[in-house]
Amino acid sequence: MTKSRIALDVMGGDHAPGALLEGALLATKREERALSPDSILLVGDEVAIQAWFDANGGNPGFPVQHASEVIEMDESPAKALRAKRDSSIGGCVKAIRAGDAGALVCMGNTGACVGASTLGLGTLEGVRRPGIAITLRMTGHPVTMLDMGANIASKPEHLLQYGVMGSVFMRDLFDVKEARVGLLNIGEEPSKGTDLCKDSHALLADSGLNFVGNVEGPDIFRSAADVVVTDGYTGNITLKLMEGLSGFLMKTVVTEIQAHKADWSGDVIGALQRNTDYSEYGGALLLGVNGTVVIGHGRSDGTAVSNALDLAGRALQADVNAHIVEGCAAFASGKESAS
Amino acid sequence: MTKSRIALDVMGGDHAPGALLEGALLATKREERALSPDSILLVGDEVAIQAWFDANGGNPGFPVQHASEVIEMDESPAKALRAKRDSSIGGCVKAIRAGDAGALVCMGNTGACVGASTLGLGTLEGVRRPGIAITLRMTGHPVTMLDMGANIASKPEHLLQYGVMGSVFMRDLFDVKEARVGLLNIGEEPSKGTDLCKDSHALLADSGLNFVGNVEGPDIFRSAADVVVTDGYTGNITLKLMEGLSGFLMKTVVTEIQAHKADWSGDVIGALQRNTDYSEYGGALLLGVNGTVVIGHGRSDGTAVSNALDLAGRALQADVNAHIVEGCAAFASGKESAS
Repeated sequence: MTKSRIALDVMGGDHAPGALLEGALLATKREERALSPDSILLVGDEVAIQAWFDANGGNPGFPVQHASEVIEMDESPAKALRAKRDSSIGGCVKAIRAGDAGALVCMGNTGACVGASTLGLGTLEGVRRPGIAITLRMTGHPVTMLDMGANIASKPEHLLQYGVMGSVFMRDLFDVKEARVGLLNIGEEPSKGTDLCKDSHALLADSGLNFVGNVEGPDIFRSAADVVVTDGYTGNITLKLMEGLSGFLMKTVVTEIQAHKADWSGDVIGALQRNTDYSEYGGALLLGVNGTVVIGHGRSDGTAVSNALDLAGRALQADVNAHIVEGCAAFASGKESAS
Repeated sequence: MTKSRIALDVMGGDHAPGALLEGALLATKREERALSPDSILLVGDEVAIQAWFDANGGNPGFPVQHASEVIEMDESPAKALRAKRDSSIGGCVKAIRAGDAGALVCMGNTGACVGASTLGLGTLEGVRRPGIAITLRMTGHPVTMLDMGANIASKPEHLLQYGVMGSVFMRDLFDVKEARVGLLNIGEEPSKGTDLCKDSHALLADSGLNFVGNVEGPDIFRSAADVVVTDGYTGNITLKLMEGLSGFLMKTVVTEIQAHKADWSGDVIGALQRNTDYSEYGGALLLGVNGTVVIGHGRSDGTAVSNALDLAGRALQADVNAHIVEGCAAFASGKESAS
């Protein structure tokens, strides 16, 4: 029984412990798959937990495991794990080790959670490196991406195992048989990308997994794969970028909609597209070559071409290249070593 | 005079030559900074160019340089550049070399454009590697990111020079004095990230540039830096991901707005947020550790916590970990080599 219990780190996260305890209550009241209070082990400061329940209708029967310390969001994970022996995230890991829980949920310091879990629980038999798996569900077709930041120094063997773990996960939780596994890369051909990409491509192609080859950004939102594997560095960069961009775009959308609310017309879409069209720039400059080179998107229309010509004209007129030569001479601290 | 001319690859891009020629015409009619026809050199199939102008009011005076071949969007750049000696992109580069133009604009095969430019023009004095610079302008505050894919095997010295080139560009074209340069990374501390990140951080910190340290995705959309440098692999992944995500989100927004148009109410925002909220997933699974670990976002509210508990419960119930162990045993082709 206790193996199916979930230890909840009540002290981690920006809105702890309130949001965590509220979440535990909500989980017992879900229409689908409601959890019993007994199946959620609250780990954290028992006084704070009791105080919250006193003010919010009482504890309906959640077991509580006291932990006297909290690892804050901005602490260095390694240092904090060494210094704080009785942290709430550490308590969750201990609960699993002691057989009092089978799972843990943590909204706190991600690095501390990964570190405490990996060191305290070890990896599964045959698994070399844990990976953080995120399931994007925006398109209506779930796509699981990993690793999103557990393992910075990924090797091809790790990416192969991410493919295996992601496929199992998609089968078990989303009923996707033989998940299509893609490798996040900068082009379709097997020869594209870093050495890690090339070696991982070879390993995945030879693995017996349902490997669909390299995938690029837009493929993810076209549901071209069910599982997308990448190294933890690229995954983490990617994750935070999607977060930043979607947050920004949605804020822009809401502002624009509210501005149009009084006088609703088709214009809101035009305004939105002008404000968020990220190909508005018209073109990219290839900086550093001995000439002014503007590269645009293949699907550019006349306006984009006109913008690209404008950019080229401005770069020429401003004499950017002469200034780059001056700048590289002035900031030449990298000059000694071989390029 | 001809040094300020811009060579336009009229044959490159999905909508060539029409969109390119239309763009050239638009550039001569801009309200601000209109270009004279004489300042745009059209490079491509002269028969196709003449035919387009015959059908669209005539050539107002653009000079034309014939090129008999086109490198298609999906061709391998290296092979195509070798095989097609009279390509339109090659013609643009030749025009710069011959002094007939100072800049070129290309909407065609990006790899071919980078290759032809780098080989044909060489780098500027002191510059080791060209970098593709994209200026994001969505937030109203321009941010230039580079390298977006010219140089996959970037070194710290290259990233330093991207910082220099990006700063010069921001000063010359956007009047940003002492541009704030950030390094795209997975955390704030100098010790974060790959070896390339750490070494680049040290070099940038010591460079005399206005280096603001590491930046993450959301920082870009909070305008925490004017220039963001990264290696060409990460930059290219990032660029295409932003493209895919913003395209997807805006399509969703437009669909939702159109669906609500007949009966306009505040609900459209709620619907949008539900459909695009990418933190809806509640949490990420740390796959591979000996226990079920769900990591959520620090800013999670009660609903996100409840979703994370649900995910943990489902992973336990489905016995994902046992299946991962089986899966890793079955797909063990990476097992021979050391981890």
